[in-house]
Amino acid sequence: MASPITPPRGMRDFLPADKARREHALGVIRRSFSAHGFDEIETPVVEDIARLHSGLGGDNEKLAFSVLRRGLDGDDLAAAIDSGDILSLSDLGLRFDLTVPLARFYATHRAELPPVFRAIQIAPVWRAERPQKGRYRQFVQCDIDIIGEASQLAEVELITATAAALDALGLTDCTIRINDRRILNGLLEYCKFEESRWPQVLISIDKLDKIGTAGVVAELSADGADSAAVLGGILEHLEPHLADGGVALTVEAITGILPDGVDTDAVAALEGLAHSLDTLPPGVTLRFDPTLVRGMGYYTGTIFEIAHPGSGSSVGGGGRYDGMIGRFLGSEVPAAGFSIGFERVVDLIELPESGAAGSVALVYDQDVPLDRLLSVKSELIASGSRVRLEKRTKNLKALLERVEADGFGAFAFVTPQTTDAGSLELKPLG
Amino acid sequence: MASPITPPRGMRDFLPADKARREHALGVIRRSFSAHGFDEIETPVVEDIARLHSGLGGDNEKLAFSVLRRGLDGDDLAAAIDSGDILSLSDLGLRFDLTVPLARFYATHRAELPPVFRAIQIAPVWRAERPQKGRYRQFVQCDIDIIGEASQLAEVELITATAAALDALGLTDCTIRINDRRILNGLLEYCKFEESRWPQVLISIDKLDKIGTAGVVAELSADGADSAAVLGGILEHLEPHLADGGVALTVEAITGILPDGVDTDAVAALEGLAHSLDTLPPGVTLRFDPTLVRGMGYYTGTIFEIAHPGSGSSVGGGGRYDGMIGRFLGSEVPAAGFSIGFERVVDLIELPESGAAGSVALVYDQDVPLDRLLSVKSELIASGSRVRLEKRTKNLKALLERVEADGFGAFAFVTPQTTDAGSLELKPLG
Repeated sequence: MASPITPPRGMRDFLPADKARREHALGVIRRSFSAHGFDEIETPVVEDIARLHSGLGGDNEKLAFSVLRRGLDGDDLAAAIDSGDILSLSDLGLRFDLTVPLARFYATHRAELPPVFRAIQIAPVWRAERPQKGRYRQFVQCDIDIIGEASQLAEVELITATAAALDALGLTDCTIRINDRRILNGLLEYCKFEESRWPQVLISIDKLDKIGTAGVVAELSADGADSAAVLGGILEHLEPHLADGGVALTVEAITGILPDGVDTDAVAALEGLAHSLDTLPPGVTLRFDPTLVRGMGYYTGTIFEIAHPGSGSSVGGGGRYDGMIGRFLGSEVPAAGFSIGFERVVDLIELPESGAAGSVALVYDQDVPLDRLLSVKSELIASGSRVRLEKRTKNLKALLERVEADGFGAFAFVTPQTTDAGSLELKPLG
Repeated sequence: MASPITPPRGMRDFLPADKARREHALGVIRRSFSAHGFDEIETPVVEDIARLHSGLGGDNEKLAFSVLRRGLDGDDLAAAIDSGDILSLSDLGLRFDLTVPLARFYATHRAELPPVFRAIQIAPVWRAERPQKGRYRQFVQCDIDIIGEASQLAEVELITATAAALDALGLTDCTIRINDRRILNGLLEYCKFEESRWPQVLISIDKLDKIGTAGVVAELSADGADSAAVLGGILEHLEPHLADGGVALTVEAITGILPDGVDTDAVAALEGLAHSLDTLPPGVTLRFDPTLVRGMGYYTGTIFEIAHPGSGSSVGGGGRYDGMIGRFLGSEVPAAGFSIGFERVVDLIELPESGAAGSVALVYDQDVPLDRLLSVKSELIASGSRVRLEKRTKNLKALLERVEADGFGAFAFVTPQTTDAGSLELKPLG
């Protein structure tokens, strides 16, 4: 018990003001998604360890927290030593994303769900990352996913609902950068990278904003200098066009910055997307960025990512991932999803309209009878107020400053002479 | 992957209708507690394993899920075998209640909190119990706690806020049974049980409704037949008075069923409590039950438990536990708490007013242009509706039944002739 009294490493407590801010933002997001026809679901925070480690989570699988089996004995430990399989001591793990649980949920409940299922998941996930500024080991994700819709309607509804949520949060100046995995693949083909190297090349391109064109070329030259040089030429040519998050989402603009003949179907599809999205809120702009990769290997088509000038990294992202949701079912189910990076977004929004207007601190004298105090409090609550009792202290100024800082808008003294709420003199705070 | 695709043992998924019902109930509870001056906080779902196993959790400690340390190797396992301490493989554990985390939170943040801190915690907890009907390995608790208030004001505010939440949920016919640990101790003294046996005697009395007076006497006779017989006599005498949850909370009624001289201070305090609580909602009744124990060893004064005819076991409980919250600080801090058993309560409430009124299913033809479909949807959302798109299928009747079951109140066809939301013909469902 000599250790400092803190939450576990990389995890946070939320005090009342923070918690209120978070719940406000979550409520806004929830209502936006719901209006757009999405339905909220919930899964347990743990999943069977075998499912968590089935290859759908990419690098995040390595960051999963595992739960110790109950009732283990020395023999179990000895067996784990022999097999070298320490995970055999574990039967469950904390989820590291909401997508693997969604695939499991869909496999369990498919028969009870509509043919096109629009899911909301707003919930914490856990990753044993090295804690650093803005990175936590427990954090909230806000995901929407559409399962069972193969057409572009899915992408359009996801982007519309997400843009509406950003708008409702008061976030103007958002850019949604869009690309298509098929365009990326077309570029790699054009550069004549061997297909087996594509995942590795995409990882390099994904680091473009950190290491620059020269860095990407250097990383890839060791194993095929010609292809790397061709890619370097393309990236250099693209650079000036990507400053604002990319170019407009039109065939003309898109083909204008791509080498000839790179997946024309995907290009046409992106323009179709833009055409269906011409009613986005004014604070949200769409841009085409052919260097956008998105880290997860499971994406198969359109991919998107939200940028905001207030955040150094993306505040959301998603895409189409047709191969994955059906994995536990053994069948292919079309799917696409969009996730808002809640921990980043919540730092960008203005404070919610304070609840100060309807809240009253009742500052009571020690000698007020308890039943009177309670009946006055109940009266005010019944009239719609939020009420906190505060015992009068010698330093009244400090007390009033504190309750004002806690968000209360008014106070009143309760004395032995107070008969009911009507006899209170409410005074504004601040 | 041959195992059936289900959530982990004893845990549940929530489909949209269940999730909506739960969120509705949680919102009602949250708003009630907040109006009564409580502030919501949040802690991580895991705590350091040493804190979870510091003796504050009673039997629940044995049910804790433990998290495997990251980066373990064979040497760590061998060391655990040698020491026989398998928990040394674990550094964190899933919380089994919200009270231990609250004690840790208070120790961490005391300086930032008001002198009397009224906390709301609404969050899941985990226990590796044998799953059975109505018992889950992940379940939600709704706790309020008042820290730093030594007077009966704490109990009064807790009971008032909880009663208001039950009332707001539409739960009438609730009985809050009340007792005081000091009265229980007085009874045990009266029966001349040795003080070292009190915990064991309380465990027996706690089982009264299952094993009856004869069962309690039998359990306790082995080790002190005289005391057991005296207790048996008292319990027999009490039995007819406990049918309705106990007797009225007046000194007359209380002393009328207790042996002479059992803690008169505590009896007077209970009457004071009743006096301050005379404005409870009509659906909530207070009763004194001297056999009420509450399982946890940390209670030091008043204890309470909610009964409802729709539930075989209690739907909430709490009490004063002055010794515990300060444990991690090494100081004594007065505290009392009340917890609503959410999983039981949510099964008792009526369905919330359906959102059907403002929700529309747009049944669209395959050949409607995507941009038109989206602009009609956006128009309806902007006018305040919740909108889901449904592709028209051959079996229209089945489709409409399904969307009605999903809570939609109206539908409209979108055809190539539809120009905007004004040209839709909304038809009620059901």
